[in-house]
Amino acid sequence: MEKIYFDYAATTPTDPEVIKAMQPYFFEHFGNASSPHSIGRESQKALEDARGVVSQFVGANPNDIVFNSGATEGNNHAISGIVYHAMDRGNHIVVCSAEHHSVLVPIEQLQRDGFKVTYLPVDSNGLVDPASVKAAINDQTILIAVMHANNEVGSIQPIKEISVIAKERNIPFLVDACQSVGHLSLDVNELGCDLLTFSAHKFYGPKGVGAIYIREGIKVSSFLLGGDQERDRRASTQNISAIVGMAKAIELCKDELLTEYAREEKMRDRLIEEIPKRIDGVKVNGDLKNRLANNAHFSFENLEGESLLMSLDMQGICASMGSACTSGAMEPSHVLRAMGLDDALAYGSLRITLGRWTTDENIDFLLEQLPQLVGSLRL
Amino acid sequence: MEKIYFDYAATTPTDPEVIKAMQPYFFEHFGNASSPHSIGRESQKALEDARGVVSQFVGANPNDIVFNSGATEGNNHAISGIVYHAMDRGNHIVVCSAEHHSVLVPIEQLQRDGFKVTYLPVDSNGLVDPASVKAAINDQTILIAVMHANNEVGSIQPIKEISVIAKERNIPFLVDACQSVGHLSLDVNELGCDLLTFSAHKFYGPKGVGAIYIREGIKVSSFLLGGDQERDRRASTQNISAIVGMAKAIELCKDELLTEYAREEKMRDRLIEEIPKRIDGVKVNGDLKNRLANNAHFSFENLEGESLLMSLDMQGICASMGSACTSGAMEPSHVLRAMGLDDALAYGSLRITLGRWTTDENIDFLLEQLPQLVGSLRL
Repeated sequence: MEKIYFDYAATTPTDPEVIKAMQPYFFEHFGNASSPHSIGRESQKALEDARGVVSQFVGANPNDIVFNSGATEGNNHAISGIVYHAMDRGNHIVVCSAEHHSVLVPIEQLQRDGFKVTYLPVDSNGLVDPASVKAAINDQTILIAVMHANNEVGSIQPIKEISVIAKERNIPFLVDACQSVGHLSLDVNELGCDLLTFSAHKFYGPKGVGAIYIREGIKVSSFLLGGDQERDRRASTQNISAIVGMAKAIELCKDELLTEYAREEKMRDRLIEEIPKRIDGVKVNGDLKNRLANNAHFSFENLEGESLLMSLDMQGICASMGSACTSGAMEPSHVLRAMGLDDALAYGSLRITLGRWTTDENIDFLLEQLPQLVGSLRL
Repeated sequence: MEKIYFDYAATTPTDPEVIKAMQPYFFEHFGNASSPHSIGRESQKALEDARGVVSQFVGANPNDIVFNSGATEGNNHAISGIVYHAMDRGNHIVVCSAEHHSVLVPIEQLQRDGFKVTYLPVDSNGLVDPASVKAAINDQTILIAVMHANNEVGSIQPIKEISVIAKERNIPFLVDACQSVGHLSLDVNELGCDLLTFSAHKFYGPKGVGAIYIREGIKVSSFLLGGDQERDRRASTQNISAIVGMAKAIELCKDELLTEYAREEKMRDRLIEEIPKRIDGVKVNGDLKNRLANNAHFSFENLEGESLLMSLDMQGICASMGSACTSGAMEPSHVLRAMGLDDALAYGSLRITLGRWTTDENIDFLLEQLPQLVGSLRL
């Protein structure tokens, strides 16, 4: 059975051109970028070339990009690294309640360790009101964290407005851009954030590699300690083949950014328009205007989302309820709860995320299958 | 110019068979192992198959293996994870003074934060005396860390003897086995350690992936926080292609473990015997008996090691002075200092490390070139 993949927000296939770009860095040019000989210098050059590509894509200086193992490490690093340097200045953190767990869990741990945390509410579309950030800040605030685009419902937060507030009070501002880098045009200076995190496997690069942007002058202690790699900001042998792959993935995204955005947006809009027409008792989740082009998210009344996923899977359709990182959990989504959905609706949710290999025919098939499957599973 | 690589301790080429094994997990089987559909389950299966292979190789239960980004993360995780759980029991750490920086630096940070640290001395061959561990332990000791084989001079520590002492006092024992896994036959139950860390790129696997063994019952808090991957012990999307590659690398090492050990040992012994015969004022560093088969380490009197490396590099010979992780540093090696070498000898050092593609002809060429180069560079 041919499979149809609708879970691009969880991870993307590595583009064949990315795989090709990575190949020479496994065996032919395999050196440790810290080694003091020609084989090491080859890797060092590949590393810095990749840093140039990645930094340019997000509008950063190359020196402000630290390569790492992905956005979980990036978010953990940003939070602990800011807190370590700012403990004498304050103990208060402001964070959006719909963040990814790699932001929420380390902050919850800090809260258990005595930090004060304000969880910013989101509206029914998942959006933060910048005024609530202003109201939450106090003299003790040392970090603000609001994601760029939500990984479950695709809503894009008003980052520019929030960064104006953060700048006024000189508070470091972390933006998890895991779902937007590679998919949207994005510039750290336009956004105004101080820290930006992302993972290559969300935009057709390999898994296990990502980066954190740290604005010059922002004090962030290292997270991985040991060697002096990444200008002493991240110990560990640099993963050259994966970093080269990440840069290649960025280049491919750059080449097609606008056309692919428009293509996905059209398919997404068909889903958002057609599904409520064809099925009763459906709620479309997430903001309809400020939204990722590849995300369509629904809640079905009187339905177990897990049963729906299983039925779809049996038809070869791969989708999800929300974040893959908590797919094992039986708790309803904290994002949907924060948006005010009751547990029954949260349990009845379906996330359809699109990408480079999604076709109109895939959308047709889903639109054809879904009403019948939902009908047969309705409680 | 053909290059000769003598820096296998810094990193190894990824074996072509490993690259081949990884390929299907980039594009065809690319799923997120946490995703609730068939594409995710394929990845989950590949992940658990790989866990079986890796765990078996070190004599562990599959559930005691946590995949990560490499040994720097593993060592950081082990140290902070043990300390977090044991803070109410004590504040004293015992660590070998010749450890890798990914062990020493996090412990130095704990020391600055108020922990007491005993640095175990090493003898002139780089070996720890188990009696010194016994003497160092007190009622406050919460962690002992002694590496398996030293990354600079190749000396193999008396781990079994130390683990007996650790067990008697019920103190968690961390062994950094970065240089030995894949190269020596090794079993966590024979060694008796509670935590073991290693990186795939040291044994012909890809960079950016490694594992930590955590003995059942040993309490270690998570290091990367967020999703519940790796049985809630390491958040972050699992790097399937790299993990599959790591398992394949382990299998290849297993197949040739004894023959390759003997082959490298013979080449190493030629270097250790011949170089002092052909060059005056040479000291062989590291224990001659308890030693990695692939490590030969020398100090030359009246010589700048960096100049020697440059001259070797110009002849196409890639070697190093010591750890690649500190190659940018101008400080003499902390390992050689701990072994009692004066700074002049430490600055005059050369590490030759061998591996799967090293040939007798490579050894011939080095033995031919080295006397002349050293002669021309002598101060």
